[in-house]
Amino acid sequence: MAGRLNGKRIAILATDGVEQVELTRPRDAVTREGARTEIVSLSEGEIQAMNNDIEPSDTFTADTTAKQASAADYDALIMPGGTVNADRLRMDPDVVGFVQEIFRAGKPVGVICHGPWTLVEADLVRGRTLTSYPSLRTDIRNAGGTVVDEEVVTDHGLVSSRNPDDLPAFCAKIVEEFAEGAHKVHDEGATVG
Amino acid sequence: MAGRLNGKRIAILATDGVEQVELTRPRDAVTREGARTEIVSLSEGEIQAMNNDIEPSDTFTADTTAKQASAADYDALIMPGGTVNADRLRMDPDVVGFVQEIFRAGKPVGVICHGPWTLVEADLVRGRTLTSYPSLRTDIRNAGGTVVDEEVVTDHGLVSSRNPDDLPAFCAKIVEEFAEGAHKVHDEGATVG
Repeated sequence: MAGRLNGKRIAILATDGVEQVELTRPRDAVTREGARTEIVSLSEGEIQAMNNDIEPSDTFTADTTAKQASAADYDALIMPGGTVNADRLRMDPDVVGFVQEIFRAGKPVGVICHGPWTLVEADLVRGRTLTSYPSLRTDIRNAGGTVVDEEVVTDHGLVSSRNPDDLPAFCAKIVEEFAEGAHKVHDEGATVG
Repeated sequence: MAGRLNGKRIAILATDGVEQVELTRPRDAVTREGARTEIVSLSEGEIQAMNNDIEPSDTFTADTTAKQASAADYDALIMPGGTVNADRLRMDPDVVGFVQEIFRAGKPVGVICHGPWTLVEADLVRGRTLTSYPSLRTDIRNAGGTVVDEEVVTDHGLVSSRNPDDLPAFCAKIVEEFAEGAHKVHDEGATVG
């Protein structure tokens, strides 16, 4: 069966504290369409996923680190949330550099919940329209982004959602955007829905 | 024995995810000097403290909620960190209002680690000099604050530190500032050290 993402290689950026369903469900959605995924993390070894931010859940094995990974090797990027996950990722200069390289190449990105903190750190929300978990909307606005409150928002290949309840819409939209491939990078507005 | 904080009533703002030592050690430091402390939280009942953000530790009982509490009833405020704690507190309008009222009255505040996120949310870092955990420094700068990297920073009654390693300096400084009492609110700079 021909999947819409056959042959695509997709990075999932995650570390300890990642919200488990925000890793597994987007991963399953793109895998079902024929993509291969790799977890890009801060270090090699296991990462501890959480449910509802504070209940430890399963562990996952990192495939590579942001230091070793090259954005050129991936067709798209998934950035799950989890408060502690996002808080730790944004502090790593290799993570910030990796994400900046993905954006510079216009590759599609799906970001959910607390995931946009790394985009704030990397100065990548300026002039963009996105959504997020409510707690970091002030940080996104202060970094020059426009925040809307919709289940999924698409701005030239940047797909964003608010929380796990939005996962059905988020997963459908990232498959669609990842299938389209790289976008030209520009800032003329966003489509919501 | 005369404590330096005899008769003072001090609020500790905390919810699930609070970094345990950032609650207990400042609390013990002010209690030792004669102060009474109360945990002000999002709801009544128990809160789950963490070690290193992701290992559940002890539970603590909230004494009151930010909705019920009046800033007028307290002489000072302690804002511990913990990534999830700070992330949840900033989303509550009653917490934001409570902290704004404490600042308006010029009452001394000790904030550590991720605690300043609530100050970012409340637009209280603009023109102030402080320190924090590294992950939120971009958010503080984007909100108009000046960030320095010192173990403890004092800016007209606002005492800030970076992480649990700074607790000895933090605890000593909050006792000193809390003993001084309310400051006039102005923005002429900060002292570091």
